[in-house]
Amino acid sequence: MNIKVYVLEKTKDKNQLAAIKEYDKRLTRYCKIKLFTLKNEEELNKLPEKSYKIMVHEKHETISSEALADKIQTLGLIGKSDISLILSDSEEFDDSFALSKMTMSTGMSLTVLYEQIYRAYRIMKNEPYHK
Amino acid sequence: MNIKVYVLEKTKDKNQLAAIKEYDKRLTRYCKIKLFTLKNEEELNKLPEKSYKIMVHEKHETISSEALADKIQTLGLIGKSDISLILSDSEEFDDSFALSKMTMSTGMSLTVLYEQIYRAYRIMKNEPYHK
Repeated sequence: MNIKVYVLEKTKDKNQLAAIKEYDKRLTRYCKIKLFTLKNEEELNKLPEKSYKIMVHEKHETISSEALADKIQTLGLIGKSDISLILSDSEEFDDSFALSKMTMSTGMSLTVLYEQIYRAYRIMKNEPYHK
Repeated sequence: MNIKVYVLEKTKDKNQLAAIKEYDKRLTRYCKIKLFTLKNEEELNKLPEKSYKIMVHEKHETISSEALADKIQTLGLIGKSDISLILSDSEEFDDSFALSKMTMSTGMSLTVLYEQIYRAYRIMKNEPYHK
């Protein structure tokens, strides 16, 4: 699975950057994941057509960790091996979910998202989750 | 406002500890906040009676950052100046909410909770939120 994460704002908080880096490292066992910072919303239109675009924003439906694991697993099974997770409230997408109803900074959202992707793979592989 | 945060598990992740410490420092302007690690669920029964006990757990209702700010402000207005926020699925409480429907480690939940308490005070004071 090829996961691309898109944000519209660079994270500067060093604790959050360190946390994201740590999950990024742990995820190398399970998938290819890469973070991109876009200059503006318009750049979202340039994302590759074949990529399955999922918006991650508080205005969408909150889901459980198990539901996220299911989502990723199902996409793999139907041959969608290129997923874009986009932290934006833009309306154009194939799917969407919320990490929380609460407003979080981009860095905090990213930290939670990376933890949840890692957790999703642990759930899919039936492996215990190490905190 | 006197906010006590109770968890049943010690956080060891150094990025999360650093993030919590940072929000703790920023919160000194707004409230007294202190983190306690309990040895077991039974210790919850020993919390001071006058403290307003709020359970924070994914099984409860997800709320927005604005709703959390409202909740804290209302408690202050009705003279409940001692709040306990308890990360547990225990059934005994005065109120409850969820940070997310997703399962998060204790350390990650604490990081999000501290950010949300800080954000709540920024909302209450009508101050911009600095990421």
